[in-house]
Amino acid sequence: MILRHLLLPDILDLVESGRLNDVREFLAVQPAPEITELLTALEDKDRVLLFRLLPRHLADEVFSLLEPPFQNLLLKNMAQEEVRQVLSGLSPDDRTALFEELPARVTKGLLGLLDDRDRKQTLTLLSYPEGSVGRLMTDRYVTVEPTWTAAQALEHLRRVGTDSETMTMTYIVDGKGRLTDDLRLRKIILAPAETRIADLLDGHYASLRSYQDREEAIQVFRKYDLYALPVVDADGILLGIVTVDDILDVAEEEATEDFHKLATVSPLQVSFKDASLGLLFRKRIVWLLGLVVVNIFTGTGIAMFEDTIQAVVALVIFLPLLIGSGGNAGSQASTLVVRAIATGDIGSGDWWRLFFREIGVSAAMGLAMAIAVFCIAWFRGGALLALAVALSMFAVVVVGSLLGTVLPMVLNKLKLDPATASAPVIASMADIFGILIYFSIATAVLRL
Amino acid sequence: MILRHLLLPDILDLVESGRLNDVREFLAVQPAPEITELLTALEDKDRVLLFRLLPRHLADEVFSLLEPPFQNLLLKNMAQEEVRQVLSGLSPDDRTALFEELPARVTKGLLGLLDDRDRKQTLTLLSYPEGSVGRLMTDRYVTVEPTWTAAQALEHLRRVGTDSETMTMTYIVDGKGRLTDDLRLRKIILAPAETRIADLLDGHYASLRSYQDREEAIQVFRKYDLYALPVVDADGILLGIVTVDDILDVAEEEATEDFHKLATVSPLQVSFKDASLGLLFRKRIVWLLGLVVVNIFTGTGIAMFEDTIQAVVALVIFLPLLIGSGGNAGSQASTLVVRAIATGDIGSGDWWRLFFREIGVSAAMGLAMAIAVFCIAWFRGGALLALAVALSMFAVVVVGSLLGTVLPMVLNKLKLDPATASAPVIASMADIFGILIYFSIATAVLRL
Repeated sequence: MILRHLLLPDILDLVESGRLNDVREFLAVQPAPEITELLTALEDKDRVLLFRLLPRHLADEVFSLLEPPFQNLLLKNMAQEEVRQVLSGLSPDDRTALFEELPARVTKGLLGLLDDRDRKQTLTLLSYPEGSVGRLMTDRYVTVEPTWTAAQALEHLRRVGTDSETMTMTYIVDGKGRLTDDLRLRKIILAPAETRIADLLDGHYASLRSYQDREEAIQVFRKYDLYALPVVDADGILLGIVTVDDILDVAEEEATEDFHKLATVSPLQVSFKDASLGLLFRKRIVWLLGLVVVNIFTGTGIAMFEDTIQAVVALVIFLPLLIGSGGNAGSQASTLVVRAIATGDIGSGDWWRLFFREIGVSAAMGLAMAIAVFCIAWFRGGALLALAVALSMFAVVVVGSLLGTVLPMVLNKLKLDPATASAPVIASMADIFGILIYFSIATAVLRL
Repeated sequence: MILRHLLLPDILDLVESGRLNDVREFLAVQPAPEITELLTALEDKDRVLLFRLLPRHLADEVFSLLEPPFQNLLLKNMAQEEVRQVLSGLSPDDRTALFEELPARVTKGLLGLLDDRDRKQTLTLLSYPEGSVGRLMTDRYVTVEPTWTAAQALEHLRRVGTDSETMTMTYIVDGKGRLTDDLRLRKIILAPAETRIADLLDGHYASLRSYQDREEAIQVFRKYDLYALPVVDADGILLGIVTVDDILDVAEEEATEDFHKLATVSPLQVSFKDASLGLLFRKRIVWLLGLVVVNIFTGTGIAMFEDTIQAVVALVIFLPLLIGSGGNAGSQASTLVVRAIATGDIGSGDWWRLFFREIGVSAAMGLAMAIAVFCIAWFRGGALLALAVALSMFAVVVVGSLLGTVLPMVLNKLKLDPATASAPVIASMADIFGILIYFSIATAVLRL
């Protein structure tokens, strides 16, 4: 079956006409990801209704695939016993993801419904900082003993494997719980039955630290091309594993967050599609108003040169072009640097080299831009005006580019988010410099 | 061993002092990803030297982990027989990735070194459009027969598995090669030995199409949480599989490309760190110069209002603030929409609703911004100026936001890249509208 597309109107028709048994039978044989997609597209009321019609095992799987806001909505409409069942059916990493989205008082109530072991585990995972690898962990992995044979290991996997999240990799720990090696399942399968596990080990393994930033984990996964990585604490004790499907989600979410930040939109938490008008307003107005403050300085800069403007009004014609170009060159630079920091492409060791390279790039761009506007300005206002505009263009492109390069690096050095050096912020700062540069040069060149 | 960090200076010392045997012994026991990282950090000359010191199997693995530009450099420095060996050691998807980065004449020469089967396969993969799922395919998957028992299937996996890229999933095809189902390896392992494969099947599977955009594949992987997905043609014939490690790379690369596009930087092809000054200049100057053309219209707009400016020079003070705010609101909107289209969050069915929501959001933001600047402008130039500035602010924020929302949607509808509606493009367009709106309103309100 190729991605069967459930027919939303058909289902809703069945629901409308009360043929719930038909709906139940239809849903029972659908794959969980398709049902999840269907539920996401429904109205709240219908979502709760359809979820109730799912058989137990399917309900658990669908619930774990839903995004936290939808999970939360379903929980609100369930009886306590239902909530208990659904929560205990979640894997530890999914449960953590749900709980971190919920208000503290709701989390507290839900924790009380878990059995002792699950509650303790959930509290442990939630104790790791937000955005850390610890929060992505699950304990559903399998360890094998070096003294076993391949056949014994396979037998062990058959016994315990049903509950493990991934079986592509097994792990070896010493008596103290310290991770000592990893072993691919395929190696166990491909080895002759009597081979000792110890003989399959190579002493090499890659791992993550529980307190590590989850963005770094993306790069570790990319480097090793693995489906799961073990997580250890500072003493090397194996705490859990992180699987690549969660990392793919993290990569997409972190990129989306950085996209939004670079456009001065505070992280939405929900999808753009589902964001309410009020939420979007709040997440966007903050920086817009903040940048008004920066622009007051721009206005003050212009006010200083009112006489110059009065004398040669034609100067104003090139003002948007100049400050716009400085802002554009700056956005290019800051976006390149912010993204390269986020993907681990550049580190603090590269900064001086990148700074000097940017001087070269921006000088070349400034020159090209200066030549372009010189021709335009000559046509409009003669040689002197053209000279003033061209000189200013060179200066604003260089200043904008260097601002865009340096600011994210400085923010990163100060352990602040480099993405705060967003295009609009750089552009606003470049505006101030641009205006001062332009009118100063114009005043000098035109002898005003 | 926790991510052993190879000591670069130590290795270089050994190389300098000619103790190549020590280097060879040291490298032979290191994991391939670490050696790859080391080689990437070296000078070209040392990279070739160290690669030559690697034992055969390690050389193959390291080569496949290197980025195409580094692979190309190594190939240039190899004898024909070495090249032949390295190329035949690459998996089909890695070979395609290398070939698509190389100039056509180099590719042609390299194709001649492959054996018939590999050459044919490589040509087939390269015949899929760039950016399509087909280019990511590998044929290293395993199929099982429904008539087998679990034990027979495991035995089959033991025989053919060494060469397969992933064994987490096996596939079932009919007599014509059409994919009919998938089956997790764990199900085979966990099943009693005598279970028939047919009894483990559920008739549900997810698949990709070979001509599908690779960006869509990211979303399919996220939906199904699988480590590998089968790829079929229009008739459902199984052509190969795509693995999640490649998809994670695609997700990071596509996001980086969109980041750059949204800042009007043309795709770099190489990493920002390794980009040359000349390359960065070329990739950045095109749009900067292009936007100068747009800004000529802005200048023309201002020229139309020279008399107004001459009469009230104070109007210029608010010009950067107004066009800046329109641009910022527009960047926010376009970035939100572009990213939501890229992640599949919104589709064409959502557009009218999103458009009307944006009218609401932008009106609210415009109102808040208008109130803010009204106070500032009153202080600087009295009530009438304040009224003109506030009305203009409302208008430019709404116009900028709607431009930023509509343009990416229209581009997407026209099958063009929505990311072309980048922040600087929207800002430049918003500038033109902003200037016309501002000076028109000012002329009317101040009765100039």
